[in-house]
Amino acid sequence: MPVDEGTASGWTSEEAERNGYVERSFSLASEMTGGAIPGLYRTPTGPAAERLVLLGHGGRTDKHVDYLVGVSALLAERGIASLVIDGPGHGDRALFEFTDRPDEFTEAWDRGGGTAAVIADWRTALDFAEGQFGARPTGWWGLSMGTMMGLPVCATEERIRIAVLGLMGTWGPNRHDLEESAPRIRIPLRFLVQWDDEVVPRQRCLDLFTMLGSTKKTLHANPGAHSAVPLFESVASVDYLDHLLR
Amino acid sequence: MPVDEGTASGWTSEEAERNGYVERSFSLASEMTGGAIPGLYRTPTGPAAERLVLLGHGGRTDKHVDYLVGVSALLAERGIASLVIDGPGHGDRALFEFTDRPDEFTEAWDRGGGTAAVIADWRTALDFAEGQFGARPTGWWGLSMGTMMGLPVCATEERIRIAVLGLMGTWGPNRHDLEESAPRIRIPLRFLVQWDDEVVPRQRCLDLFTMLGSTKKTLHANPGAHSAVPLFESVASVDYLDHLLR
Repeated sequence: MPVDEGTASGWTSEEAERNGYVERSFSLASEMTGGAIPGLYRTPTGPAAERLVLLGHGGRTDKHVDYLVGVSALLAERGIASLVIDGPGHGDRALFEFTDRPDEFTEAWDRGGGTAAVIADWRTALDFAEGQFGARPTGWWGLSMGTMMGLPVCATEERIRIAVLGLMGTWGPNRHDLEESAPRIRIPLRFLVQWDDEVVPRQRCLDLFTMLGSTKKTLHANPGAHSAVPLFESVASVDYLDHLLR
Repeated sequence: MPVDEGTASGWTSEEAERNGYVERSFSLASEMTGGAIPGLYRTPTGPAAERLVLLGHGGRTDKHVDYLVGVSALLAERGIASLVIDGPGHGDRALFEFTDRPDEFTEAWDRGGGTAAVIADWRTALDFAEGQFGARPTGWWGLSMGTMMGLPVCATEERIRIAVLGLMGTWGPNRHDLEESAPRIRIPLRFLVQWDDEVVPRQRCLDLFTMLGSTKKTLHANPGAHSAVPLFESVASVDYLDHLLR
């Protein structure tokens, strides 16, 4: 049943079939920000999914971003559900329109509640999913701002068992939170780096990988710009989750 | 028919079945060194292999080293033949016994003929294999000294289509040959790095990866010492060759 966004928590749409999965919108009350957490739940057509992957979108995008549609479709092919919410100051939570103004990304992140809100909101979102469908093996997939969110979340949320992270370093508006979270993360993870990243300097990415506390961590690096992760690497990242998320 | 090693070229043993493959020894005349090139050819039991991977062993080991036995077995499972020869100053070509004397690796490499002999010997070995079994899609798998050999070979030998390299950097007795070869290599490759490599400094490895001229190159890095490449990474490297060597 649809809810009044910002005041209640629950589904806000009926199920709709997309390319390879069934999608449903929800809105949850954000403890930290007082506003709404808008999100999408995507589940394979057919039998109920027995595994779940949380998806973190990149900066200046939102829960509808194309590459997460692709990741959700690949996950659904493997029988895995996925869930994505708008990050701080992004998507339906935007506080202003992005232009090319310097520091607007930092402003959106900070005014949107930053790392503290991210941790609380993802806990709320996972609570919601588990309330609806029960507890399931759960992973994380998020690059760039999806790692700005995912690294602190995975370092604090014990229900997440495995992660795909990357395109981020000791850099950006929550750099110190990343540096604080990195040694505390213990789950197996794959970390993607773009060797010619023009947004996050390569060395900052390598430094963050070095700091990660997981004993099972693998860095995959390819030539190219920040947003030019090769398709084979994205597909392989989903296979990685599929093989190890049990 | 067995040949007199060092003076003629051909098989020096009958076929013998090992774990998952059939092995046969050979000895070829080395144009550059005047000595013999001792080697092993390994082929799957069953139908004739339609693909071949050349294996470069690591320093202070030889053509019989355990981890290449494992790689050959994994390749054979996938229907791929493999071939390994002793490198300069190693195995049956050793000029002295390895102890812990400083610089003995460099001495073995240099007195054994170094990069020039490596390039010539591998051409001879591939000529021999093609003479026996015909031309087939051919790849390279070699880490550490296996990359000291493989990078110059792959940069000059147009019959090699794909490579697994790594555990090497702008470092060691043929550093300048590696730096000269790197920009000239054009084939797809995977490059393995051990993040805590105590032999070849990490930064030297990253520098060599950066210099590689291939547009399709992927770095895979894992925690651990030089010789502690995780088993899953070795298996994945064989799958990489299997999927792309056509």
